[in-house]
Amino acid sequence: MKRSNRLVALTNFFLENPRTHTQFPYFVSQLATTKASISEDMDIIDAVFRSEGIGYLRRTTGAGGGVKFIPACVDEKNKCFVEALRQKLKDPVRILPGGYLYMSDLLGDPKTVREIGRVFASTFSKKNIDVVVTVATKGIPLAYAVASFLNVPVVIVRRDPKVTEGSSVSINYVSGSSRKIQTMVLPKRSLSEGAKVCIIDDFMKAGGTITGMINLLEEFHATVQAIGVLAEADDEEEERVINDYTSLIKISNVDMKKKAIDVHFGNFIQ
Amino acid sequence: MKRSNRLVALTNFFLENPRTHTQFPYFVSQLATTKASISEDMDIIDAVFRSEGIGYLRRTTGAGGGVKFIPACVDEKNKCFVEALRQKLKDPVRILPGGYLYMSDLLGDPKTVREIGRVFASTFSKKNIDVVVTVATKGIPLAYAVASFLNVPVVIVRRDPKVTEGSSVSINYVSGSSRKIQTMVLPKRSLSEGAKVCIIDDFMKAGGTITGMINLLEEFHATVQAIGVLAEADDEEEERVINDYTSLIKISNVDMKKKAIDVHFGNFIQ
Repeated sequence: MKRSNRLVALTNFFLENPRTHTQFPYFVSQLATTKASISEDMDIIDAVFRSEGIGYLRRTTGAGGGVKFIPACVDEKNKCFVEALRQKLKDPVRILPGGYLYMSDLLGDPKTVREIGRVFASTFSKKNIDVVVTVATKGIPLAYAVASFLNVPVVIVRRDPKVTEGSSVSINYVSGSSRKIQTMVLPKRSLSEGAKVCIIDDFMKAGGTITGMINLLEEFHATVQAIGVLAEADDEEEERVINDYTSLIKISNVDMKKKAIDVHFGNFIQ
Repeated sequence: MKRSNRLVALTNFFLENPRTHTQFPYFVSQLATTKASISEDMDIIDAVFRSEGIGYLRRTTGAGGGVKFIPACVDEKNKCFVEALRQKLKDPVRILPGGYLYMSDLLGDPKTVREIGRVFASTFSKKNIDVVVTVATKGIPLAYAVASFLNVPVVIVRRDPKVTEGSSVSINYVSGSSRKIQTMVLPKRSLSEGAKVCIIDDFMKAGGTITGMINLLEEFHATVQAIGVLAEADDEEEERVINDYTSLIKISNVDMKKKAIDVHFGNFIQ
């Protein structure tokens, strides 16, 4: 295969297989070329990936040596994307009863969801994550987007057990906003003991749901490595129980009567 | 930018922006090159995309002319993928009470989910689809995968209204398997009148859930252009009410006692 064709095929391969270690002989045989040529191809791809803010190629040498594509956005690109999101969320027409924001249109756009996933995956790039955990249903697309860049599976915590998932572990917890006792379940087969977990959700107020997830994950002896929420809302009546999390957007001063709202950057920018 | 660098940047652009019409002047200015060079780049990319079964570039000339990447797998590649899936699903350890199959591990793998999305998007490539609709919660990741290749939004039908979605339209329907009356809701803001819809779900037995979705969609005067289910199960007690659908996998003769199951190709291969 010619260099120009190889570059297209290799670029596609890396983008479709993030964080996947691939040995050089695989490329040599697939693309019918030499190791030296592949190495030059990778120099070109790595340079473009870096300059375009897509990520980079991590190469290892020696026996079993190969290459891994690490998706990683530059901070500036992430900030631009979140700023665009912030502008969209500022629209007071989004205010819903109870101080919630209508975000289903943004969460229904696969491209926006993918970009949110890219921002979290970049932010959590150095953490050692085995699995992304979310709670049904709004966090699901975000969890898949993050997981696809991290190349790990997704596990979904539910409000009620389903016949299609077999036996489950369940816990009860008190929801911060409604003060009601709620239930969360996780199928036994879905998570291996001691997994290193990243929790992803769309919205956090007092943090009751995420606390519930942490408690449930303790039953599986999982370690929470990272917590990412798209939007957090200041809730003055409640003390935040979760401290170590990353948010992209922060909402405050929701005034239902005046239809006013403040939308800021979350804590993802230090 | 040099050709080799342009090829990497353009390949990334097309893969990230399927079914998006982009005019040539955009590339000319972004990549600091000439229209003739861009045109040659596209010949190379188109040839590799076709030979690797990734899809193709559709170019239009004249005023407003440009290019669109259409993801489209070749039938042979789709068939290989579904065959691998079929082999995994054949494991009798997956059999659950009620003739269901445990599929959460496969549905939890973002790569498998993405490939399923690619197969459906290829199959429905010629249909005129505005939006992908699914029902919470198992179908959600599949719906996003299909939608990302079709470059359309996702709308999620729920079992109960949520405060974060505003006012909703709801219908009641009789579930085929449990004979219970169930409810489905769709927020008013989520779907525009007369939308052309593709329904995606993970599992279909008698088809009661999908019939319910069709009835709910009628309230929005939507037209169902395509229905895709990952797996369908023969249910001898029930007459199938949905006929025009695409399934990747077909399950039959589930024998709980003998722990036996037959897993065939669905009707996606004509």
